[in-house]
Amino acid sequence: MLPGLHIKASTGESILIDAGEGTQLQLSKAEISINRIDAILITHMHGDHVFGLPGLLENMSLTGRTKPLLIIGPRGLDDYLVNSFQSTYFAPRYKLYYLRVRGFGSTNIGKLRIEWFPACHTVEAYGYKVVYYKRPKLSKEKLAKKGLYNNPLTSTLLEKGRIKYKGKTITLEEVMKEPGREYCIAYTGDTAPCTWVLEAVSRCDLLFHEATFASDHQYEAWAYGHSTAGDAALIAREAGVGKLVLYHYSTRYKENYNVLLEEARNVFLHTELGADLAEYTV
Amino acid sequence: MLPGLHIKASTGESILIDAGEGTQLQLSKAEISINRIDAILITHMHGDHVFGLPGLLENMSLTGRTKPLLIIGPRGLDDYLVNSFQSTYFAPRYKLYYLRVRGFGSTNIGKLRIEWFPACHTVEAYGYKVVYYKRPKLSKEKLAKKGLYNNPLTSTLLEKGRIKYKGKTITLEEVMKEPGREYCIAYTGDTAPCTWVLEAVSRCDLLFHEATFASDHQYEAWAYGHSTAGDAALIAREAGVGKLVLYHYSTRYKENYNVLLEEARNVFLHTELGADLAEYTV
Repeated sequence: MLPGLHIKASTGESILIDAGEGTQLQLSKAEISINRIDAILITHMHGDHVFGLPGLLENMSLTGRTKPLLIIGPRGLDDYLVNSFQSTYFAPRYKLYYLRVRGFGSTNIGKLRIEWFPACHTVEAYGYKVVYYKRPKLSKEKLAKKGLYNNPLTSTLLEKGRIKYKGKTITLEEVMKEPGREYCIAYTGDTAPCTWVLEAVSRCDLLFHEATFASDHQYEAWAYGHSTAGDAALIAREAGVGKLVLYHYSTRYKENYNVLLEEARNVFLHTELGADLAEYTV
Repeated sequence: MLPGLHIKASTGESILIDAGEGTQLQLSKAEISINRIDAILITHMHGDHVFGLPGLLENMSLTGRTKPLLIIGPRGLDDYLVNSFQSTYFAPRYKLYYLRVRGFGSTNIGKLRIEWFPACHTVEAYGYKVVYYKRPKLSKEKLAKKGLYNNPLTSTLLEKGRIKYKGKTITLEEVMKEPGREYCIAYTGDTAPCTWVLEAVSRCDLLFHEATFASDHQYEAWAYGHSTAGDAALIAREAGVGKLVLYHYSTRYKENYNVLLEEARNVFLHTELGADLAEYTV
């Protein structure tokens, strides 16, 4: 099947990355409501990543969507959609916002931060990071000692890291029970092994890295802007991610995808093979 | 599923009508080779009839197609494809011919004649007829009596209906064992009940007529350029077709499509419900 990822945050946000033909069907199989999706992120303008988008957007309208939708993607995506809409006599009944990505950048969707970074493919391409910042937990006891328990100043403390209270500076660390941390999921899209990707995905909990080939096709992989399973594992190891999920396999390996898995695990043990409708929790 | 029809002629021609999203998957399930398809006929430019086309054309190229492909369809189809190709960095490696339909007309594909006729929908729309002419069979005995057995003049006789031989006019009827006849399959695309359709499909062996609604939604059907099952059956009866196959049902009937079948059979007995991957032989 064509690659794509749906991210459902515990805080409610629903994000789709890439929309090849048949994405609607897969979303329906996974019982994901298309009209709850907040944003669709497109990695690059190759058909296997966007041909499912016009139908998806149209079906949202037909099934009564009123919630605005944010589309994030590279140059050309807006023209593609507008042309497609015009050719097929369609206009969405909901508001459709478009954000063109360039270089590195980020935007917020609800409580999530979406970051994009360039990938190394044959055409302009981006990877995405979806980041959730879990705030530090404060200690009731430590707060009480400072006379701050149930005091509205604690939210300022959480936000700024320090406050002045009764003439004293109180830092977050002094009253913290558990530090805050970022949870991060990264998705490379199509890419050859790429220093931009390496830097961007550093220390992510979960990395979806494409692995089109095994190292028996190393040259072919790089020539066509793709990675081998070994390349993906090296990126994962160097970036210090928590877990690597491979995807976007060439059908030449369909008899035995384990070739890819073994190659990657020799380099980075915490590797899994992505699969249609598979679910991962961070 | 989205509507579409594949016609495989005993003489080898392979014709696809309409290409909604997921058409490739259905063709693959039906074990129809996409690279044997000679022509794709598009009824109208609504997304559920064309969104599968760019991916199909791209996949033909990726899987090594070299045979030219003929695309037949209404105004806007060429722009739609060119825009889609440009947006996704794609150019087919095979020759792609485009024939824009207008009003009534026909073209030949191998031994088949393709005819188009306007339908009555909310946007410019066409139905198609695929016609195969089976030549008359000549009687060896009758030919022998006229001294024409194994004579190359018989092909002229078949073609023109009469020849002059040894000063006499000989007509086809005089030496015929079995008359020729046309086999015809008609496909309406989306349409309200429509006199153009009625005339065009006259005496066809097999008519695929859309039946979006039952007569409980008669007004809604016509208002949106669709037919009820009863409308379709009336067209079938008046046109004197051999068999009617209903398709393009509204999902509101998904619990009980037999409502549509019964309504149609009350008017025209030789009616069937079309179904995904169903096959019909003429």
